[in-house]
Amino acid sequence: MNKIIFGQIGKLKKDKIAEYTALHANPWEGVLETMKRCNLQNYSIFLQEDFVFAYFEYVGDDYTTDMRKMAQDAITQEWWAHTKPCFIKNAFSEGGEFYKDMQSIFYLA
Amino acid sequence: MNKIIFGQIGKLKKDKIAEYTALHANPWEGVLETMKRCNLQNYSIFLQEDFVFAYFEYVGDDYTTDMRKMAQDAITQEWWAHTKPCFIKNAFSEGGEFYKDMQSIFYLA
Repeated sequence: MNKIIFGQIGKLKKDKIAEYTALHANPWEGVLETMKRCNLQNYSIFLQEDFVFAYFEYVGDDYTTDMRKMAQDAITQEWWAHTKPCFIKNAFSEGGEFYKDMQSIFYLA
Repeated sequence: MNKIIFGQIGKLKKDKIAEYTALHANPWEGVLETMKRCNLQNYSIFLQEDFVFAYFEYVGDDYTTDMRKMAQDAITQEWWAHTKPCFIKNAFSEGGEFYKDMQSIFYLA
């Protein structure tokens, strides 16, 4: 199985931390189904103060196409309409409007 | 298999980022063996500016005992003598001298 590992960082607005946490405590079933259909697995989000960190594994053959498919999913778009306003956009340098890919510096299987 | 997921955050001294990265580009075999023996798996470290983010899975029966075993390992102690000075100690509130456990707010298998 081809597995690509992602670590991402984002920064939340301080008055939106509770809302972002509540949304993810009860995620929408349709969003989860879309994530699985787009070959994402072992997906965690962690919170530290106003920082959020996402870890996930991509196990498909074409990440770009699968992410485009996810972005075209109506339920996911509605979910993002709730979650994206929780972020400070472009909080980190060098791209990544919401979540930004981090550099992997170590891996042990 | 019992699997406990950890996400941790740390903050590096700006003049130690390159050293920390270089150490993890060529980790010591004895350290990796100890990690596996202490039931850690799927261990990633990501870098964003001076932040480091660790993700790993614990698959043993007694995390506290295994972490004590790791801390008593001579090679690991020598490794930590190199890596720990790269950190700003207690960079985050509420404990975590080097890496600090974060709060998990979402998980999708």
